[in-house]
Parts: sequence; C-alpha cells; structure tokens
Amino acid sequence: MVVIYRTPKDPEAFDAHYFDVHVPLAKRLPGLRKDEVSRRPILTPAGDSEPYLIGILYFDDVAAMRHAFATPEGQACAADRRILAPEAGDLQMYLFDAAEV
Amino acid sequence: MVVIYRTPKDPEAFDAHYFDVHVPLAKRLPGLRKDEVSRRPILTPAGDSEPYLIGILYFDDVAAMRHAFATPEGQACAADRRILAPEAGDLQMYLFDAAEV
Repeated sequence: MVVIYRTPKDPEAFDAHYFDVHVPLAKRLPGLRKDEVSRRPILTPAGDSEPYLIGILYFDDVAAMRHAFATPEGQACAADRRILAPEAGDLQMYLFDAAEV
Repeated sequence: MVVIYRTPKDPEAFDAHYFDVHVPLAKRLPGLRKDEVSRRPILTPAGDSEPYLIGILYFDDVAAMRHAFATPEGQACAADRRILAPEAGDLQMYLFDAAEV
C-alpha cells in the first residue's frame, strides 16, 4: 500500500500526529510486514514541493491488506487517517500486489 | 523511486513497451537493488480506475538514484520513459529516501 499525503495546513501538528499517533496505530495492523516512511525532501522531475510525505506499508498481498482494514485495529487506523487527511484531495492511497521484474 | 502511470491511450502497446523495452532498460541502471511492478487491479478508496501501473525502484539512497540517472544507462531509461509517458500528466515520479518506522 502506497499512501501519498499533500502538504498539510499545519505541518508541525501533522508530523506530531503522524509519528506519535498514526504510526503506532499502523504498526498494530494484523499482517503488516513493514512500514516505511519517506524522508525529506521528496524529489520530483519538475521540482514540485508536493507531495509532503509518502508511507509504504507492506503486507503479504492485497487480501491480507483488506483483512487488516476489516479488523478493529484497521478501522482505528483508517479513522485516524481521516483525521490526518480530512479532505478528498489530501491524499492518494493505492493498494496493489507487486511483483519483482 | 515510485513511478505512477496514468492509463495510456493504447494499454496493449504500453504493456508491450513497458515490459519488453522499459523494464530491461531499468534493470541496467547502476545501483538498482530491486524493481517491482504493480499487478492489477490497483485499488483505491474511491474505486477509481486510475492509476494504471506503479513501478517501485529501490536503490541504496537518493544519491545512488541520482548517480544512476546521470549515467548513459540512466539517460536511456529516462528517454524511454518519455516515450512511455509523453505528456506531463501521464505520470507522477517521486524520489525519496525511506526509513522503516
């Protein structure tokens, strides 16, 4: 799962919430294998100031992700994510299986 | 590095080019540790039909990525990527260091 956050209105509050609340909730997701978070800066070909933060959560497969978000821990994580990114444009979230090529 | 492609005008031609030409070029990038490609479907909270494909390329760090794309192999890969995704909106590309949390 790749989650891409736009720059929040209050980056300092976002960071505190993200690392002190959201990451601990995410780490309780059943089946989570690894949780990686981007460091700054995130570079783009056009030199944009977006995105602000990218999280990559690893599970065995999409079925395991879906199962995780159906649990109470997953529901808590999703609810907290809506606090972090309340508006539709605040984030992009993609769930997919990936294969090494 | 995370590369997110929009649905191309000709998906069949895109796939052939991506897997037969682009992936082999990417695999020649100096310092590449792993190249992963999304399988379908890519799921989103809103059930969008985008994006079409996500590639994740792993290097030791951003410095290694920048070095890779400064080589002839990197230049060839970037030039081919512009054939795959000729318009600005055809892809998002993000380069960042990531840390496990």
